[in-house]
Amino acid sequence: MADTATDSRDDAVSAKSAAMAGRETPLIRNYWYVAAFADEVTRTPMRRTILENDIVLYRKEGGKAVALQNRCAHRSYPLHVGKLSGDRIVCGYHGIEYGPDGRCAHVPALGIAPPAIRVQAYPLIEDGPFVWIWMGDPETPDETRVVRQRWCTEPGWAHVKGYMHMKANYLGLHENLMDLSHFPFLHGAVLARAEHAAEKPNVRVQGDVVHTGVMHRDVGVSPAVMAATKMTLPVDRESVQWVPSPAIHCGMAITTDSSDPPQRHVRHIIHVPTPETLTSTHYFWAIARHTAIDDKAIDAEAQAFANKAFMEDKVALEEIEEVIARDKRDGFSEKVIATDHGAIQLLRAFARMAAREQSDAAAAT
Amino acid sequence: MADTATDSRDDAVSAKSAAMAGRETPLIRNYWYVAAFADEVTRTPMRRTILENDIVLYRKEGGKAVALQNRCAHRSYPLHVGKLSGDRIVCGYHGIEYGPDGRCAHVPALGIAPPAIRVQAYPLIEDGPFVWIWMGDPETPDETRVVRQRWCTEPGWAHVKGYMHMKANYLGLHENLMDLSHFPFLHGAVLARAEHAAEKPNVRVQGDVVHTGVMHRDVGVSPAVMAATKMTLPVDRESVQWVPSPAIHCGMAITTDSSDPPQRHVRHIIHVPTPETLTSTHYFWAIARHTAIDDKAIDAEAQAFANKAFMEDKVALEEIEEVIARDKRDGFSEKVIATDHGAIQLLRAFARMAAREQSDAAAAT
Amino acid sequence: MADTATDSRDDAVSAKSAAMAGRETPLIRNYWYVAAFADEVTRTPMRRTILENDIVLYRKEGGKAVALQNRCAHRSYPLHVGKLSGDRIVCGYHGIEYGPDGRCAHVPALGIAPPAIRVQAYPLIEDGPFVWIWMGDPETPDETRVVRQRWCTEPGWAHVKGYMHMKANYLGLHENLMDLSHFPFLHGAVLARAEHAAEKPNVRVQGDVVHTGVMHRDVGVSPAVMAATKMTLPVDRESVQWVPSPAIHCGMAITTDSSDPPQRHVRHIIHVPTPETLTSTHYFWAIARHTAIDDKAIDAEAQAFANKAFMEDKVALEEIEEVIARDKRDGFSEKVIATDHGAIQLLRAFARMAAREQSDAAAAT
Repeated sequence: MADTATDSRDDAVSAKSAAMAGRETPLIRNYWYVAAFADEVTRTPMRRTILENDIVLYRKEGGKAVALQNRCAHRSYPLHVGKLSGDRIVCGYHGIEYGPDGRCAHVPALGIAPPAIRVQAYPLIEDGPFVWIWMGDPETPDETRVVRQRWCTEPGWAHVKGYMHMKANYLGLHENLMDLSHFPFLHGAVLARAEHAAEKPNVRVQGDVVHTGVMHRDVGVSPAVMAATKMTLPVDRESVQWVPSPAIHCGMAITTDSSDPPQRHVRHIIHVPTPETLTSTHYFWAIARHTAIDDKAIDAEAQAFANKAFMEDKVALEEIEEVIARDKRDGFSEKVIATDHGAIQLLRAFARMAAREQSDAAAAT
Repeated sequence: MADTATDSRDDAVSAKSAAMAGRETPLIRNYWYVAAFADEVTRTPMRRTILENDIVLYRKEGGKAVALQNRCAHRSYPLHVGKLSGDRIVCGYHGIEYGPDGRCAHVPALGIAPPAIRVQAYPLIEDGPFVWIWMGDPETPDETRVVRQRWCTEPGWAHVKGYMHMKANYLGLHENLMDLSHFPFLHGAVLARAEHAAEKPNVRVQGDVVHTGVMHRDVGVSPAVMAATKMTLPVDRESVQWVPSPAIHCGMAITTDSSDPPQRHVRHIIHVPTPETLTSTHYFWAIARHTAIDDKAIDAEAQAFANKAFMEDKVALEEIEEVIARDKRDGFSEKVIATDHGAIQLLRAFARMAAREQSDAAAAT
Repeated sequence: MADTATDSRDDAVSAKSAAMAGRETPLIRNYWYVAAFADEVTRTPMRRTILENDIVLYRKEGGKAVALQNRCAHRSYPLHVGKLSGDRIVCGYHGIEYGPDGRCAHVPALGIAPPAIRVQAYPLIEDGPFVWIWMGDPETPDETRVVRQRWCTEPGWAHVKGYMHMKANYLGLHENLMDLSHFPFLHGAVLARAEHAAEKPNVRVQGDVVHTGVMHRDVGVSPAVMAATKMTLPVDRESVQWVPSPAIHCGMAITTDSSDPPQRHVRHIIHVPTPETLTSTHYFWAIARHTAIDDKAIDAEAQAFANKAFMEDKVALEEIEEVIARDKRDGFSEKVIATDHGAIQLLRAFARMAAREQSDAAAAT
């Protein structure tokens, strides 16, 4: 398969091709994206722009989350400025009420609820800390595509999580997450080991899902984890990752120590890049574990790690966004190298997804 | 007439049509707009952008107001940075002098005043607190179109006035001003009564002038007015409005009490939305009365009322402008309902005015 | 020659023509521009945008200045955020190393230095305080075009210098510098004399190089210069200027006093407008003299003069840029008058240069 051709020395570099998604590629809509953390969505309406749609999120009295077009059908007033009345949201301008399905429930000026007054309702699925939103045709959400994270919901697991707003196109974060070779340079000695620089994970593509895997022998263990587990060094760590959609990178790190029998610890590292606009991204993340789940020191350590490392990625991607805005340079095209193999597969998968959506849309009209 | 068809329940809602002015409609030029309050225009040149033209305003030594293109014909330097010399304005860059008619009066570099050096002079008419500017062809100002406000100039009347800069397209303010149904929701209980929500004023269209009228029975009277007039409750209020151009909403409220014979008080409420750009508007207003004209308590009450209610409108319209900038949504079109009847007539009149200007301009070339 | 036709009174004014460079004219690349002062370029990489290219400047260990595309070929990360390793710059994202020639020296991920990984290297020539950069085809820099300023490098001369960032298109500064007639109006009495307003320097065009000259009789002498030289009044000053490229205005002022034999003092005034974008400019300047070269009072006086007068020009040009952004006015075209004769010649020369570059580029493809 041409896609998996390797980096022979005389073929180590090529330009990005038109078959890879780029910033000119339309946003991909027929997937579930994370709209918010569950604890962000409350009885106080909140606004969030997702895939260039202005959206309001709130909870019904019974607790179910709702996402609606944040733009009244009548005069474009943002609904998040309004207030809730039971399960309805009431526009702050003319008092038009919408139900959780986006249908008008009451127009005070008319005394009726005309079907023609309606805002888009976005299907939501809540799964542990994540509120997933379907950004495709609201009539045909495909629930089987939700990438459930049972390690964030089942007993016996604990997780920490965080959010950063990033002023950069989301594709750069996808490339970053497929790539270990930037660790020694961007993240410094604490996180990285010298061999990361040339790390070329195994890459496997199944349909549009990209899988990577890499084994690190004799790795370090963090002080808090060591204190909780008393692992016997040396320790090996296998890192695997699968990317089933533009909306999520599912990572798993499996640590095996030298005890007899060996201790085996699993950690899930979940990265969620939700496009806001073509030049900005909501970056959610979570790290889940089944080891010492009540240990606050491990929580704190994981939180500190993410706040440092993911922030370094965010800052780097924002620097790149600024270069792209600033630098007018004819004929420039980024180059890809062997360690980009996983990223290339991902950009190709995204290009296929986008092309499919465009051709489906063209066929539908 | 189709335009005045009413809101039968199965016909209560429709989408805005191409026959109504929208934000893509060209600005309408052949009318008098308010450029400034008279007391803003002094011997210190001031800049104001009106209908996307940069303009400088000042007064001649004799007091007459002048409006010129705020852009020197020579090097585009803004004239408001310069200084006055008698009735002329002197460019601060090369000293080129312009008379109040926009003709060059002196080019120091040439020692002459060549006719080819000239800036556009905008015809002005001052009427009480308002300085009206003609934004159409400067050779053919139509003075009959000035909407004089004699209650702001004649003895026996008093007025208060104010100005707000609004970061929103001017059409939203026009819609807002034709609409009572937002009172209970946007302005709260002090200003509004429950029946406002379904208020459908009578609408009458004469040529391009839209008239509305509504009668409110048993309305409240403000404390200051009550103290000054000692009206006998109940009180009725008839509100009428006429909009002769995109530049002004003329409102009149006639209050009649239950004395025998009844007291009758008239208040004029004048709203002036002058487009600055396609996304910003100068919002001038004045409220005039013939009752207790020296009563400072009524002045203060009217000022406070306007500062609260008109500011609420401004904030709402700026929220809408932000939604429009933020929300990319294919196929979205605002809906109109029965209470928008007056606004619809207005947007249709504006669309006719704009179309006429465009066809006149095309015919002229 | 039509270009040198004079200002007969009935032909004193005309509109700018398409044969003059304007803000729609493409930036002119095949010249040496000043990228930086020499003392700005150090072992700490600095970023500067020049002709819309994002560029990083640094010095090799041996001291030679280097300019590279500030955008890694791999992922567009800005190189100025990275660090130097000997003469190489190391990208802060994946550790890719580039030599001073822009060729990749090492890709850690590959362990090799593939020729396909490369950033543009910009030829530099250092001449006294100025670091000149070639913005044309990097393969064919024309060293003969560097406008060397020997009065900034040779013994017996002293200079002061400065830099201002200007939010305005560079052509306005070129026009300004060819023009004495704005002195009395923009710079006030200290700098200007009344006769400046109508000053029409002699203009001579040789190929694309524009020369101007003007003689001022009985001029003032600054206190510091007078203290150092004890010139005998009256003093005459001849000012000459030549503009060999869009990158520099070379000025020279020759002062001759009334001693017997006369004292003769020469001062070079060098203005350097380097386009950053189409709406912003780097404005470097230097003033060199051979008189009392160790006299700090003259240094301070020259610095104060430039900080005042050149800042007044910068502020005026930024005002103009704002008018142009703000004022939409159909059919507006700036007018030129007799004192613009030098500026017109310059804009025509620039239009020829730009047209030549465009036709060469078209022929090459």
